[in-house]
Amino acid sequence: MNALKAVDGGVTAPRGFLAAGVAAGIKPDSTKRDCALIVSEAPAAVAGVFTTNVMKAPPVAWNQEVCRHGKARVVLINSGNANACTGKRGEQDARAMAELVAHATETPLGEVCICSTGVIGVPLPMANVERGVKACAASLSIEGSRYAAEAIMTTDTVPKERAVEVPLVSGTVRIGAIAKGSGMIAPNMATMIAVITTDATLEPGPLDDALRRAVGVSFNRICVDNDMSTSDTVLCFANGRSGLAPLQPGSPDLDTFERALTGLCQDLAQALVRDGEGATKFVEIEVSGTASDEEAGCIARAIGQSQLCKTAFFGGDPNWGRFACAAGYAGVAFDPDRLAIWLDDLLVAHGGRAAEYEEHDAVAVMTRPEFRVRVEVGDGPGNAVFWTSDLSHDYVSINADYRS
Amino acid sequence: MNALKAVDGGVTAPRGFLAAGVAAGIKPDSTKRDCALIVSEAPAAVAGVFTTNVMKAPPVAWNQEVCRHGKARVVLINSGNANACTGKRGEQDARAMAELVAHATETPLGEVCICSTGVIGVPLPMANVERGVKACAASLSIEGSRYAAEAIMTTDTVPKERAVEVPLVSGTVRIGAIAKGSGMIAPNMATMIAVITTDATLEPGPLDDALRRAVGVSFNRICVDNDMSTSDTVLCFANGRSGLAPLQPGSPDLDTFERALTGLCQDLAQALVRDGEGATKFVEIEVSGTASDEEAGCIARAIGQSQLCKTAFFGGDPNWGRFACAAGYAGVAFDPDRLAIWLDDLLVAHGGRAAEYEEHDAVAVMTRPEFRVRVEVGDGPGNAVFWTSDLSHDYVSINADYRS
Repeated sequence: MNALKAVDGGVTAPRGFLAAGVAAGIKPDSTKRDCALIVSEAPAAVAGVFTTNVMKAPPVAWNQEVCRHGKARVVLINSGNANACTGKRGEQDARAMAELVAHATETPLGEVCICSTGVIGVPLPMANVERGVKACAASLSIEGSRYAAEAIMTTDTVPKERAVEVPLVSGTVRIGAIAKGSGMIAPNMATMIAVITTDATLEPGPLDDALRRAVGVSFNRICVDNDMSTSDTVLCFANGRSGLAPLQPGSPDLDTFERALTGLCQDLAQALVRDGEGATKFVEIEVSGTASDEEAGCIARAIGQSQLCKTAFFGGDPNWGRFACAAGYAGVAFDPDRLAIWLDDLLVAHGGRAAEYEEHDAVAVMTRPEFRVRVEVGDGPGNAVFWTSDLSHDYVSINADYRS
Repeated sequence: MNALKAVDGGVTAPRGFLAAGVAAGIKPDSTKRDCALIVSEAPAAVAGVFTTNVMKAPPVAWNQEVCRHGKARVVLINSGNANACTGKRGEQDARAMAELVAHATETPLGEVCICSTGVIGVPLPMANVERGVKACAASLSIEGSRYAAEAIMTTDTVPKERAVEVPLVSGTVRIGAIAKGSGMIAPNMATMIAVITTDATLEPGPLDDALRRAVGVSFNRICVDNDMSTSDTVLCFANGRSGLAPLQPGSPDLDTFERALTGLCQDLAQALVRDGEGATKFVEIEVSGTASDEEAGCIARAIGQSQLCKTAFFGGDPNWGRFACAAGYAGVAFDPDRLAIWLDDLLVAHGGRAAEYEEHDAVAVMTRPEFRVRVEVGDGPGNAVFWTSDLSHDYVSINADYRS
C-alpha cells in the first residue's frame, strides 16, 4: 500500500463537494442532528453496494435504481427512522423525500440518493424530513462534512470521517468519506451506512468494480453482531473535479486509486468495529493456508462471528479450542492435523493440538485491548483478514432494554 | 401424533438395557459423576448422527466407524474432558478407552461406542477413565439410567431422561433416552450428546433413516448459541428385546415408531434449550408459507440464532422489526409485502408493516417465560418450528469467565 496523506474535510475534502448536517426533530432528542446532505457541484458517476436483505428498506430500492443509471449528484441521509417495514406508505415516503431533495437542490430526481437509518416499522415523520431537507440545503458548505458525519450517527459514540490525498501519475485526487456503524435509536435495528466522495474521474462501470472489491475486503469483513440490516448502504460519488482524464481499466492509476479506496474503506470498517455496541476489544482474525482467499474469509468470519469466541475475547480467556472449533464448522475442508493458532506472536496450538506455551503469556495477549488471532490451516495460497469486537455485558444491555 | 405413555426408567426403560454412572475424578470436583455406561444385554442395531465439524473429536470418528457396520452393544460417555484437539494422542486414547470398555463388558471392540464431553485441548486422564470404566461395569443395573444421565452433565443444571411406551399393531415397544446440552466444564466448548435405546427390532438401515429424520426436526432445530461443537453426537440402539418382528420400511408400525422417536427427540431438544446457558426464556419460532419445509427452517433458524432477536427476547421487547430483518437475510426469497408476524396470538405485523395492536399487549407476551413467534411469508405449503433461548447477561458471564 502506498503511503497516503491523510487530509481534513471528510466528504468535502475532494473538490466540488458540499455538505450539511442539521437537527430536524426526527430523533427523540430534538437537539441532535439527524439530517445530512452531501452535494456534488457537478454531475458525478455513482456506484453503490447494498444489503441483500429481502426486507430491504424503500430507500435501498430507490438507490439501486439510481445506481443502475450510474449518475447522481446528491444524497440525503436521515437518522432516527429507518423507513423500513413500512409497506406502501414507506415507498411513497421515500419518493416524496427524494422529490423534496431534488427540489431543494435543483437536481434531477433521478440523480438523488436517499438513506434512512434508525427505528424500524414506524412511518417517516415527513414534516420533519421536509424541514431537515430545507435547512440542509440552506447550510451547505465546504465545512459541512463534520456536521453530516454527526447527523448520520445513531448509537455510534463518535462521528467517523476520513479523507486521503492520492498521488496518481496523472495528478492528485482526493477521496473522502463519512460512515456510521451498528447502532440503535430507541433502540432498534443496526444499520451501516457509508458515503464516499472523490474528485477523481471515473466511468460508472470502473467505479462500481472498484467499490465492490473494496467493500468485499472492508465493510464485508467486519462484525459487531451477525445481523445484516434492512438498510446497509455504501455509496461512492466521483465528480471528476480534479480535472484529470478518466481512470482507465487496467491502468496503474486506477490500481492506485482502488488501493487507496480500499484502504479508506478498511480504515472506516475498523472504526465501526471499535465503536461497536458494547465493544471493549478490537480483534483482528487472520487466516491463511487455504486453497483460496474466499475459503480463508469463511474461516475468519466463522471465528469473528462466533458467540463463544467473542465472549472469550471479552473475558480475556485464551480458549483457543473455541477458535479451532469455529474454524472447523466454517464449511471449509482442511486437515485438522495442520491447524496452528497464534495469539499475536504466541503459538498456542499446532498440529491440531496444544503447543507448549505459558498460560500467563496467552492471558497477557488476550487481555490487551487489541490483539490478533492468527490461524493457519495448511500451505495453500489463500488468506483473509476479518475484524471483530467482543460480546460484552453492555452489548446485551444495549440491545435488551425496552424501547422507551 | 399418537398419545404416548410416558414411563420411568430413561435408557433402561426398554427391555434388555442396563446403565451406570460413577464419579471417576475426570471432573475437577471429584464427587461429581463423570463416567456413564449403557449396555444392551443383546446385540443391537445402532445408528448415529454426528457433528460435521472438521475438528471432530477422535471419539466421533470412532463411533462413525462403528455405525457404518450398524451393530453395537455398549456406549461409554465421560464428561469433564472432550478429548478434542488432542492430536494423535487423542486418537490413541479414544481407542484405548474403547478397549477398556470392550474388556470390562466382554463386548467385541467393534461394537463399543465412546463419547467424551468437556474441556478441549487437554489429553484424557486415562487412569481416571480406566477407574470409571471398571466402576461402571461393576454397577450396571436396570436402575442406572438416572446416574448415567447425571454423569454426562457438564454445565447442565438438571439431568435429562425420558422414556415412552409405543403401542404398535404388532405389540408394544419402548424408547428411552438421556441427553446433555450446551455446557462448559472449565468453561469450554458446548457439546450436545444424546443416547437413545429401544427394544424394538429394526435393521440398521431403517433405524438410521428414522433417526436422521427425527434429529432433523428436533436436535437440529434448536439453538442456545450458534457454535457447532466438535463432539455433537446422537446414538440410537435397537436391541429387539421386545421380541417383535423387525419393523419393515413402509409399514404403519415403522411410521408409528418414527413418530414416537421424533416426539421423544423433540421433547429432549426442548429440554436442552430450557436448560441452555443463561437462558431465562423459551421461545418457539414457527414459520409457514414458504415453498418448502427446508426454506421455512432457514427462516426459523435465522430468527432463532439472531443475537438481536435473542437480546430482544431477554429484554421482553416486542421489537418485531428484528424478526422481520432476520427473516429477510435467511437466504430465502419471499414477497416482503406478504410478511405477517404474531406474538403468541397477537398480530403485530402484516403486509410487511406494523399491524394495529396495543404495545402493552405485545409486551405482555414477550415478558412471558415461554412464548411463540409465528411468521408467515406467503401461502406456500412449507413450515418449520425452531426452539431457542434468549441471550442474557448470564450467558456472557458463563462464557467470559476465565477457566480456573
